[in-house]
Amino acid sequence: MILTSASAAALDAADPVAAAREHFILPPGVIYLDGNSLGALPRATPARLADVAVQEWGEGLIGSWNAADWIGAPARIGAKIAPLIGANPREVIAADSTSVNLFKLIAGALAMRPDRRVVLSEPGNFPTDLYMIEGLARMGLAELRLAPEEIAASIDEQVAVVVLSHVHYKTGAVHDMAAITAAAQAKGAMVLWDLSHSAGAIPVMLNVCNADLAVGCGYKYLCGGPGAPAFAYVAERHIAAFANPLSGWMGHAAPFAFADGYAPAPGIERLLCGTPAILGLAALEVGVETIAAIGITALDAKRAALTEAFAQSVLVLGAGHGLERVGPRDPAQRGSQIAFRHSEAWAINRALIARGVIGDFRAPDILRFGFAPAYVGYGNALIAAQTLAEILATKAWDCVEFRERLPVT
Amino acid sequence: MILTSASAAALDAADPVAAAREHFILPPGVIYLDGNSLGALPRATPARLADVAVQEWGEGLIGSWNAADWIGAPARIGAKIAPLIGANPREVIAADSTSVNLFKLIAGALAMRPDRRVVLSEPGNFPTDLYMIEGLARMGLAELRLAPEEIAASIDEQVAVVVLSHVHYKTGAVHDMAAITAAAQAKGAMVLWDLSHSAGAIPVMLNVCNADLAVGCGYKYLCGGPGAPAFAYVAERHIAAFANPLSGWMGHAAPFAFADGYAPAPGIERLLCGTPAILGLAALEVGVETIAAIGITALDAKRAALTEAFAQSVLVLGAGHGLERVGPRDPAQRGSQIAFRHSEAWAINRALIARGVIGDFRAPDILRFGFAPAYVGYGNALIAAQTLAEILATKAWDCVEFRERLPVT
Repeated sequence: MILTSASAAALDAADPVAAAREHFILPPGVIYLDGNSLGALPRATPARLADVAVQEWGEGLIGSWNAADWIGAPARIGAKIAPLIGANPREVIAADSTSVNLFKLIAGALAMRPDRRVVLSEPGNFPTDLYMIEGLARMGLAELRLAPEEIAASIDEQVAVVVLSHVHYKTGAVHDMAAITAAAQAKGAMVLWDLSHSAGAIPVMLNVCNADLAVGCGYKYLCGGPGAPAFAYVAERHIAAFANPLSGWMGHAAPFAFADGYAPAPGIERLLCGTPAILGLAALEVGVETIAAIGITALDAKRAALTEAFAQSVLVLGAGHGLERVGPRDPAQRGSQIAFRHSEAWAINRALIARGVIGDFRAPDILRFGFAPAYVGYGNALIAAQTLAEILATKAWDCVEFRERLPVT
Repeated sequence: MILTSASAAALDAADPVAAAREHFILPPGVIYLDGNSLGALPRATPARLADVAVQEWGEGLIGSWNAADWIGAPARIGAKIAPLIGANPREVIAADSTSVNLFKLIAGALAMRPDRRVVLSEPGNFPTDLYMIEGLARMGLAELRLAPEEIAASIDEQVAVVVLSHVHYKTGAVHDMAAITAAAQAKGAMVLWDLSHSAGAIPVMLNVCNADLAVGCGYKYLCGGPGAPAFAYVAERHIAAFANPLSGWMGHAAPFAFADGYAPAPGIERLLCGTPAILGLAALEVGVETIAAIGITALDAKRAALTEAFAQSVLVLGAGHGLERVGPRDPAQRGSQIAFRHSEAWAINRALIARGVIGDFRAPDILRFGFAPAYVGYGNALIAAQTLAEILATKAWDCVEFRERLPVT
């Protein structure tokens, strides 16, 4: 289906998710297709931050750890993330960064498979996933193996844990969580799913897939703000045996007994390390609540239709200018993004931004467009496709002024 | 010197730091002696948070990583912390939690002493410092040794790194940084100083003491807010050889090249791991700027006089009720806190809080009073001493209603 002014307007008018746009603040004149890098600002967030600062911190001071339940924030927000990813509320906790949580879970998985040391991932996975494994390898605790062929076929009895992004950050391709999890478990390996480009974008079925471990990002589709706390999931059947290598005081069974010796909290709180980042958690909680209130099923249905409409429109409107579609054609096989390859991708992306269409560039030659259906509509997708087509037709990127690449994922 | 209404008023009137009180928002009627657990709210923080949320995130969106220099925040704020701790601006970075930074630096130090595995600390050190060493021990990378006697005498050629709190969290006692550092280095060991109760409270002379490594907390005397990002210091002579075991993408030499292989940033940025927590960093930056503007020398002079005036006043006004002073008598040998031991310490602390004097309890029997000289005056200290004396004289703690202990450090 190719978008036209009329069809886009009709689709927006019939969109059950369209009203959610009002729950976000976006600058006028901007079409924001980078919510897969930094989600937009929920309308309720500034007031919540002011309340946490002025009332809870300024007035309540140290007492707010109890009175405002700061101390419960990581588990409380984890429980709100849980239904978005198919977990139960006791299996998810919000804390630290995705990278730090990767370390906790990979090292913890290695400790549960003491006779194995291979951590299997794939070339081109999001870099920090690979870098965190490298860190463990430098410590002598792991051996990084990049799957030489199809993932499931690369899992053998040396593999302790498989680390994969559920949705690929460049192409948007979705791994078959159930099949890979089953294949790994058949070889005695665990699987750690990075849900950074899944959570809040597509329904994730961790427990249906019998998942072991997962991490994910708070600042993309969950709209938790720049550098928001991330989350970690450990299947309930593993929690009692799971040792967090970053065994800080907040993961202790009784942090305020101030005992010299460590004893882990019985539940998912054992995944905590240092003092919870309350300002970041407050913003994350608003983001998670905003997305959860819209409903992941409705968001997913719009995601499938919206991304496909954009892709088809670009391919028709921008035909003949060297654009190559990348990633799965079937909407069920991809996340909430569309990617194209073009030799001038970097400059084209800059030209788009100069025209108010904020997409993203991924080295060396990928144009990546994230569609956060909570605040992007069909009319936006049409303008973005038209703008891209115009840039291609006029080679408008030739006059793009040099600017530094943006640090986005 | 015992405080009286007249002497306290005269001291406040002559206090060169008194005007700084206006840079903080504190609830009326409260005497806040727990700034060593959670520093007070700087007056400028709420507006700064609103600006980051509404302008930088909401308007600037992903572009703010460059336009608002979000990407530079960890090193920029580290450089502002540096003069408070006697470091140069290239040696300090703001990131993650104190606990996570302990892990990075202890593991990194072990890697620099590959023929040694002992991490030496002392019994009763702040628990998370010990727990993080335990985590490394469980991974098979370290052996935790608690000094059986005086620290310097306990360092031998098996010790890779000594981990000590510069100011003790309960007693306020200060370790001799120069002497212990020299003693450790004479045995080929490194020293990691935890500055959580030092930074912003007393002048720290890392480079004068030829320090190796340090971490510290952002939410105590630096007034960065609940769960603020912490900081890490690596002496410049060690940076090039220092391997961060949590080698996430933000510590990469070129994070946005998205290469499969890790290569550390040349400078202190190699201590980074995940995406910087921008909301928390923004609040921390205000806190650090506020404290730095007052000046650590002036704060330190007031600290010495104020804590001593409080201690002497309590000992006289509250004499005969079982209160035992804990910690160094010489102000130069302690941090910005005063501690007493009492068998009913927990209940006394609750009775104080009920009367608007917010001190702290540390198990099993310690009353701890933190004096943040930036916003606590002599008149406050007098009222706190009088209130404590009155509670002791009337055994007013007998009617304290049970409430959960507060999660404070």
